Amino acid sequence: MKRIDLNSDLGEGFGAWRLGDDDALLSVVTSANVACGFHAGDPTVMRKVCEGAARRGVAIGAQVGYRDLAGFGRRFIDMDPAELVNDVLYQLAALDGFARVAGARVAYVKPHGALYNAIVHHEEQAAAVVTAVRLYDPALPVLGLPGSAWLRRAGEAGLRCVREAFADRAYTPSGTLVPRREPGAVLHDPDAIVARCLRLVTDGVIRAVDGTEVPVEADSLCVHGDTPDAVAIARLLHAELTRAGHGPRPFTGR
Amino acid sequence: MKRIDLNSDLGEGFGAWRLGDDDALLSVVTSANVACGFHAGDPTVMRKVCEGAARRGVAIGAQVGYRDLAGFGRRFIDMDPAELVNDVLYQLAALDGFARVAGARVAYVKPHGALYNAIVHHEEQAAAVVTAVRLYDPALPVLGLPGSAWLRRAGEAGLRCVREAFADRAYTPSGTLVPRREPGAVLHDPDAIVARCLRLVTDGVIRAVDGTEVPVEADSLCVHGDTPDAVAIARLLHAELTRAGHGPRPFTGR
Amino acid sequence: MKRIDLNSDLGEGFGAWRLGDDDALLSVVTSANVACGFHAGDPTVMRKVCEGAARRGVAIGAQVGYRDLAGFGRRFIDMDPAELVNDVLYQLAALDGFARVAGARVAYVKPHGALYNAIVHHEEQAAAVVTAVRLYDPALPVLGLPGSAWLRRAGEAGLRCVREAFADRAYTPSGTLVPRREPGAVLHDPDAIVARCLRLVTDGVIRAVDGTEVPVEADSLCVHGDTPDAVAIARLLHAELTRAGHGPRPFTGR
Amino acid sequence: MKRIDLNSDLGEGFGAWRLGDDDALLSVVTSANVACGFHAGDPTVMRKVCEGAARRGVAIGAQVGYRDLAGFGRRFIDMDPAELVNDVLYQLAALDGFARVAGARVAYVKPHGALYNAIVHHEEQAAAVVTAVRLYDPALPVLGLPGSAWLRRAGEAGLRCVREAFADRAYTPSGTLVPRREPGAVLHDPDAIVARCLRLVTDGVIRAVDGTEVPVEADSLCVHGDTPDAVAIARLLHAELTRAGHGPRPFTGR
Repeated sequence: MKRIDLNSDLGEGFGAWRLGDDDALLSVVTSANVACGFHAGDPTVMRKVCEGAARRGVAIGAQVGYRDLAGFGRRFIDMDPAELVNDVLYQLAALDGFARVAGARVAYVKPHGALYNAIVHHEEQAAAVVTAVRLYDPALPVLGLPGSAWLRRAGEAGLRCVREAFADRAYTPSGTLVPRREPGAVLHDPDAIVARCLRLVTDGVIRAVDGTEVPVEADSLCVHGDTPDAVAIARLLHAELTRAGHGPRPFTGR
Repeated sequence: MKRIDLNSDLGEGFGAWRLGDDDALLSVVTSANVACGFHAGDPTVMRKVCEGAARRGVAIGAQVGYRDLAGFGRRFIDMDPAELVNDVLYQLAALDGFARVAGARVAYVKPHGALYNAIVHHEEQAAAVVTAVRLYDPALPVLGLPGSAWLRRAGEAGLRCVREAFADRAYTPSGTLVPRREPGAVLHDPDAIVARCLRLVTDGVIRAVDGTEVPVEADSLCVHGDTPDAVAIARLLHAELTRAGHGPRPFTGR
Repeated sequence: MKRIDLNSDLGEGFGAWRLGDDDALLSVVTSANVACGFHAGDPTVMRKVCEGAARRGVAIGAQVGYRDLAGFGRRFIDMDPAELVNDVLYQLAALDGFARVAGARVAYVKPHGALYNAIVHHEEQAAAVVTAVRLYDPALPVLGLPGSAWLRRAGEAGLRCVREAFADRAYTPSGTLVPRREPGAVLHDPDAIVARCLRLVTDGVIRAVDGTEVPVEADSLCVHGDTPDAVAIARLLHAELTRAGHGPRPFTGR
Repeated sequence: MKRIDLNSDLGEGFGAWRLGDDDALLSVVTSANVACGFHAGDPTVMRKVCEGAARRGVAIGAQVGYRDLAGFGRRFIDMDPAELVNDVLYQLAALDGFARVAGARVAYVKPHGALYNAIVHHEEQAAAVVTAVRLYDPALPVLGLPGSAWLRRAGEAGLRCVREAFADRAYTPSGTLVPRREPGAVLHDPDAIVARCLRLVTDGVIRAVDGTEVPVEADSLCVHGDTPDAVAIARLLHAELTRAGHGPRPFTGR
């Protein structure tokens, strides 16, 4: 039986501010994309999440982003690719320090927000993030959108590429995401979400907005956790996948 | 012949701003205290200094500080020691990432500015920095002021302690530094500085402000590099130590 | 009938992060201490709160603090008083810009967190904040703790001093606050809080932790709003004060 | 005799870091574009420059930029225009506070770096900066590139538009700047710079890179001051303009 990975963003608080329920998510996901301090996450949050993840066997991923706390990393920054290499290295190494202290290691890299979106198409920034991962540890897998410049370049550079699908996002007939600004782009019905995810895991297809079924290859399902509803949906998805014999497990491990 | 270490602060620029002449200092010192991004230093500066240091065989030290770019780490922050542990871990690991990419490793830890001064007496913050170093790597030596809470606690925790003296600072008859705000606290005459440093290396004594000689045990000499004069003095000191057979070498090395 | 002011901290979000319920509080308080971007608050939050306050006739106060987003302004920073003057001026003027755009003006100054606590005793920092207020607008009232260096110096400098009491904090027999770390320092029972506040408004006394009654002169009551409970208590207090004929109104107004 | 304005960027230090020679420039320029803390400039620098400018009768302009200290405001940030309005308001008001304390007022607005470049073409961001200026004070002139979306929209909104030319930049035959990355884009010969600026002031033309003369209408000349050479050139230009009877004076004044 195919078993899939569930990934989600964690550790997105900063100082006195909290965002999402890290503890709840750590009991649901198999891979935690941990913010590294540039767009969210402070050292104390990072350490706490790493320790929780290590304790539960959740894989620790570096959720690297632009240096933009005020914008939560959601604004494209047209930065020098050579400097982006270094910004990513810094974040990766800092998180890995906390992972080591917790008895684990950073197990993969998944860029955040505007950087994630930019490197779907922005070749220079995609190349910069690939360079940073290779410099830090060429054995690190990278997580991203199938068809992105990011995964293509990572693959060409010899990095292991992990493709993700989105549990709560609508797909176009050509297999891309319906843009967030369009109606129906984000799904909210728990049962519908669970059903399409099961279909994806068992048959490798997702029903698109026009009703057609499109093949989607995914090694990991991205679930969200920034609302109580989102956590509940993630929990339900985990339970139903497990019941169907596709109990989630990290793509990194056994 | 006793050979001493020369350490100095490097990598203290940030973005468009520069401070000190890193290239010049890398050709003089044997140990570089590299700022880690919290009070100074950005990822691109950090990488550049690490690569220059690795190329020249200069030991890379983590110059950890308070998170205070606006204050350059020179203002005491009364922070929770538990959070200080994590802030230090973050900085240490981030710098170590660049050191590794350069083919080296962080070789020691020397706190910066107000943190350096605070942990001479502040037991909780001293303990926090010691904890961070031990969590990260208990084999890392620490550099500091003889008699400080920092070195005492580091020693008790089993860390290797490296004592430093200051090439251009006046000493009291009891062997402590004359406070900066007092007249004559900082020495400017190159010949006088070289003479007292040679005396320290050969005889283990420094002439205090009242003319008496006080024993000072030092494994490393701290030289400054934030002015052209300071760099020139450091160069002269290096040359004269070498001529006298005490050619500087890293305390970390052989 | 004496009518008292109710003040609370607002606008303490930053970017994607929220803290407290600004909308709920704006319908309860008569004076809003608005964070100015150094320890919390970003320009968009500041503008929104200023517009809401102006619309409802809530007085806008500058909640100035240390430059410390990571510490939420809750950590003492031993900064140069001359620089503190300028940091306060900057925050004050920035907030006043948003107040003006909303058709209002900054109506008072209340320092935040560690700065509030520091200037109870720290004469130089207290003097610095007083200097900043006088330079910006000597007609601005200041809000603070009775007996603090801050209010004493402000008074000596000719500023109007507004004394505050804390609705949910226990008092010692000498009229000071029971330190937060001691048991019972923070009150949680809504009825008890309302009762003691009514007593304070009508009789000018508060029952201390040992049962004695101590005179407390207060022009404003500080209520908290960072938890749903705190908002509910503030609402109840507002309702009960109004019912008793002490309907809250801004100390700045009519 | 036509008299032109000389503007330059000032106050671009931050904390311990300095950039350019503010004192030297204040004795040369008639309009100072003062950084407001988002990409450079801290409250202490801002106050010092405002006081120096006020003392010498130099007009104080708000050099507003993206919130990006690490990038010195030189990286385009694809931010929400509604948030850009507020970021600009914040900076404008903060600087105006220091101008007032110095007995002056902010006299104009000139965006910095990547924001300056973006709003040559980016209609939404250009509109956002115009909105901010109008909200703050519709009587404030704005300084910018002739033909930019920024000046066009400012003009449509009823703001006074001040056009600038660049003393040390090469022009194309169509009157636009030769991009920095092309050879010869920046002029270094002091005599050539002075000659072309005199020509511009007297005849309203600049000799383009191909030798043709192009009409350029300019109310202000932008000079640079981030190198000792640049300051020397600005001084020479000031002296020669004065000798020729075109002694620089602020466009804001008489």
